[in-house]
Amino acid sequence: METKFKLVIEYDGTAYHGWQRQATDHSIQAEIEKVLAVMTRREVSLAASGRTDAGVHALGQVAHFACETTITPEEFLKGLNSLLPADIVIRSCEAVAAEFHARYDARRKTYQYRILNRPVPSAVDHRFVWHLRQELDLDSMQAAAAHVAGQNDFKAFEGAGSPRSSTVRTIFRAEFFREDQDYLIFEIEGDGFLRYMVRNIVGTLVEVGRSRITPEDFKAILKSRDRELAGATAPPQGLFLVSVGYK
Amino acid sequence: METKFKLVIEYDGTAYHGWQRQATDHSIQAEIEKVLAVMTRREVSLAASGRTDAGVHALGQVAHFACETTITPEEFLKGLNSLLPADIVIRSCEAVAAEFHARYDARRKTYQYRILNRPVPSAVDHRFVWHLRQELDLDSMQAAAAHVAGQNDFKAFEGAGSPRSSTVRTIFRAEFFREDQDYLIFEIEGDGFLRYMVRNIVGTLVEVGRSRITPEDFKAILKSRDRELAGATAPPQGLFLVSVGYK
Repeated sequence: METKFKLVIEYDGTAYHGWQRQATDHSIQAEIEKVLAVMTRREVSLAASGRTDAGVHALGQVAHFACETTITPEEFLKGLNSLLPADIVIRSCEAVAAEFHARYDARRKTYQYRILNRPVPSAVDHRFVWHLRQELDLDSMQAAAAHVAGQNDFKAFEGAGSPRSSTVRTIFRAEFFREDQDYLIFEIEGDGFLRYMVRNIVGTLVEVGRSRITPEDFKAILKSRDRELAGATAPPQGLFLVSVGYK
Repeated sequence: METKFKLVIEYDGTAYHGWQRQATDHSIQAEIEKVLAVMTRREVSLAASGRTDAGVHALGQVAHFACETTITPEEFLKGLNSLLPADIVIRSCEAVAAEFHARYDARRKTYQYRILNRPVPSAVDHRFVWHLRQELDLDSMQAAAAHVAGQNDFKAFEGAGSPRSSTVRTIFRAEFFREDQDYLIFEIEGDGFLRYMVRNIVGTLVEVGRSRITPEDFKAILKSRDRELAGATAPPQGLFLVSVGYK
């Protein structure tokens, strides 16, 4: 009989072409599946809560797999972490009900985007921030970010060439705050996200921070559903999938 | 006429054999000197507040150099940061009095040592922590750390093969605290440090945290001046030179 396992996964996405297995490129999914195959001597297929793009990080990605095995969750946790490269860590492993699905059962996701806002870059943190030299106006960014919360059609912030049946999503919380003096952190929690949505929102909020557009302009862009009006996509290395919530 | 410049330097020590220039190995000093030579078309020699060992990081190392040049401090700051690799960043550059000496004038140094204390390692932070699975007793470590403050002969915590004329140092502050749930941070500030002193103190404090020795044993080891009694040297990647203070 098959057992279903749920993994919570942390990764530094710097060296990977994203979560999803690809024919040629290096992916997080392929790395973990390779080690699961070694441990179980079977071909095991992982299903995640959603893909993350090239260079994006995760503190709490969730994925499941099903397998006929006598290996316990504790043994998977230890075995996976001893065999995986240092930039992928399994935070927890548990047996779950056969019906559990990491993607279909996900009810909320939290992302964090980290901006380092000071004249010089960071030597120890350059893999994990978007470094912006010009001082940003946090108050305006906070005012604009407030418009993101609620149920909205986020078509203006969808990545090109990735049409979904619906572009309406509900955002429970979206806020910018300062941390450790020079860091501007954006946290957003919602029932789901379109491709590049967080990075497009951040790219546009930074235009507000640069005083190129006003918080009201930001709101108008959101309501316009027109991708042409939004700012550039923020680079991947500042983005973290923090957690995925289930029923 | 020569101008003297003071640099504050941040670096990720992972890829380097330490601060000090070596015949063959990769060092922070050599990387910066190489770029200074490109900028000034002269051979420039950097003098730091002190060396850091292989794998140790810095947020605020200080070094000086003297050079006959028309380049301004602002131009050095921009030029160095655009030419240096991403894991070395000049935080600031200023012209200082001809008498200034980064090593002889240093009056206090602050180090931080970061321990990640949880069952699994960190994928995004593995370069910057000592990961310890076994739960450590923070209360005992704090009690033991309190004995470090004050003027003491730190011979018991000196690295082998590095005799100094005096092994007496004054520690202004030494404390362990918890951060972000799983991090145990040791901060120590003093008028100077022997080679490996911070890492040897941390290695011995961890023995206290593991309940292998008591805070009173720690105090006795400190007073003994006997290196044989102290714990193992903590690994380099958890250690940061945070700042150097001058008159």
